[in-house]
Amino acid sequence: MPETIPEDALDLVDEPNIGVVVTIMEDGMPQPTPVWIDRDGGEIVFNTAKGRVKHRNMLRDKRVALSVLDPENPYRYLQVRGTVAMTDDPDNAGIHAMARKYLGTDYPWLREGEERVNVRLTPTDVQYAPPRG
Amino acid sequence: MPETIPEDALDLVDEPNIGVVVTIMEDGMPQPTPVWIDRDGGEIVFNTAKGRVKHRNMLRDKRVALSVLDPENPYRYLQVRGTVAMTDDPDNAGIHAMARKYLGTDYPWLREGEERVNVRLTPTDVQYAPPRG
Repeated sequence: MPETIPEDALDLVDEPNIGVVVTIMEDGMPQPTPVWIDRDGGEIVFNTAKGRVKHRNMLRDKRVALSVLDPENPYRYLQVRGTVAMTDDPDNAGIHAMARKYLGTDYPWLREGEERVNVRLTPTDVQYAPPRG
Repeated sequence: MPETIPEDALDLVDEPNIGVVVTIMEDGMPQPTPVWIDRDGGEIVFNTAKGRVKHRNMLRDKRVALSVLDPENPYRYLQVRGTVAMTDDPDNAGIHAMARKYLGTDYPWLREGEERVNVRLTPTDVQYAPPRG
């Protein structure tokens, strides 16, 4: 069942912080990679390209974990585990919106033939460590 | 077989950056948590306490992934996957050394009866993304 990200942790997702998303390799090994993240209500969204390792991993296993550290205080961090749903991003609206959040411009690094994918992570387990003094 | 962390990525481990270590839950789900990290030659060391989720996970499955982002440039990051060996830290020398690196003092948060463990991660797969302009 879905779990809720606490109110006082939402800024970690809403600010342009880099998250570490962890997908699962075929042999069960975790594969962490940095990603831009955003939020749609209680769900985390991110974007990737077809054919990348994490995309192939998520096609095989929908379970994903995400970690976000507060850059000002790394003892304040959010961990979200859950399952993902992927949809095509044929006009690149998803990756451009993400780039505007992080870069202030449309995504400048699209490659010829690259096909982007919107990923939506529904939390099933949320852990939040508030600041430690 | 062990893999080597590139020379120009070593500062990410040598500086007091927070790493995200990912262990594997019993059901295969990745469990990312922030950790203090250090280096012994080509191996990554960190420290945890007996009974914590990540300790229990590593007792069951020695495979661990680690991600370190450059706080000045999160597009510069190091990913290390490998296997861990754990040894007791009965006099807390390991956690105190780690605290001196990160806090400049001995570890101040030991709890009554807490038993610490030194963890050594031998890389089997290393990925390093140099700065992106």
